[in-house]
Amino acid sequence: MRLKNIPHAKDFLAEHGNLIYMDTEEVPTIAAGELPITVEIGAGRGDFILSHAKTDKTKQFYAIEMYDSVMYRAVDKHLSDPQENLQFIIGDAKNIEHVFKPHSIERIFLNFSDPWPKKRHAKRRLTYRDKLKKYERILIKNGYIEMKTDNRGLFESTLLELSLEGWRLAEISLNIYDDEDFVAERVHQTEYEKRFISKGMPIYFLRAFPGREESEVY
Amino acid sequence: MRLKNIPHAKDFLAEHGNLIYMDTEEVPTIAAGELPITVEIGAGRGDFILSHAKTDKTKQFYAIEMYDSVMYRAVDKHLSDPQENLQFIIGDAKNIEHVFKPHSIERIFLNFSDPWPKKRHAKRRLTYRDKLKKYERILIKNGYIEMKTDNRGLFESTLLELSLEGWRLAEISLNIYDDEDFVAERVHQTEYEKRFISKGMPIYFLRAFPGREESEVY
Repeated sequence: MRLKNIPHAKDFLAEHGNLIYMDTEEVPTIAAGELPITVEIGAGRGDFILSHAKTDKTKQFYAIEMYDSVMYRAVDKHLSDPQENLQFIIGDAKNIEHVFKPHSIERIFLNFSDPWPKKRHAKRRLTYRDKLKKYERILIKNGYIEMKTDNRGLFESTLLELSLEGWRLAEISLNIYDDEDFVAERVHQTEYEKRFISKGMPIYFLRAFPGREESEVY
Repeated sequence: MRLKNIPHAKDFLAEHGNLIYMDTEEVPTIAAGELPITVEIGAGRGDFILSHAKTDKTKQFYAIEMYDSVMYRAVDKHLSDPQENLQFIIGDAKNIEHVFKPHSIERIFLNFSDPWPKKRHAKRRLTYRDKLKKYERILIKNGYIEMKTDNRGLFESTLLELSLEGWRLAEISLNIYDDEDFVAERVHQTEYEKRFISKGMPIYFLRAFPGREESEVY
């Protein structure tokens, strides 16, 4: 994603967002509530999660994004048609446990995450083993991650990391736009995805859950 | 693979092959020996395993194929340049435990296996859960399977079955012919692969090992 320096983004967000700031050493406050919680990590300009929040009032949505200049676009869209079941969080996903309590989240979306293609940057990927361990702690029983990406290397390394950490695959498609079993996964699209699918390149998808034994966590 | 009716295939094999027939209810006789054992299940016309057997004298190779009319081609090629470290086995892979003792095989190759694309035929796939359980029993400690295929559906279902059975991925590539880390996996090619790569379609690859705990089996 191209990052522009938008000087007024920070001010705009401070004024309008009712935002949660994640990069603080605070005690997490968000727990599982009346509505099951869905989080998108790396929500970008927000098209995917705004579309979800509008059409599914049975979930509470949180959009996490680390860049002010990107989050600004999502909040701006949101303000033109606010959804009560959507809130925005600014910060780095590595601090996600500063906001969400253990066993609070039902579903984590990871859409077109930064692939960090160089091996020396593997630890920065959102599906690197340390992140998976954090997700495992904040997911409820039967909670899961859903990932979409066009990046082959990121998808391959994700499969290896999931296997290493003992996660289980519930669903996989190596091209959801050429797979009748994955029509539902095409409904809500990111900005990136919309541009990408016109080129006919495969979009990879997986859904996976921690392979923990009941006794390990609960 | 197109199967022709070759009337003399059976006779030819009986005369020349020094073959093992697997579809009998016999006590398995092949155990781990001086050379580690590599098996290819569905060896087809044999190009892949003949190439391996010629270039790697540190392994004992077994080519398994269920169709006389296909095996005939492989044995015919073999007889023109016999390799002492290669033997042929005729039969259905579901009977593999009739020939190989538990903990006898180091490596199982599954190359371009029949994808059985219809869901009601899923049980026939060579990576269906019941087959994986058999492989787990006949593999030695640190033994593994290696799979190549052009078939997306087969590869997806294999990843799900492996996950379900608790196997671990050691390596994966969603296109070995566009991946510098997988040059070695391109060296020995099946007949099918040779024809296929000229079309530029992705060839999927994985290496996986049973996730069993030491204590479960040994």
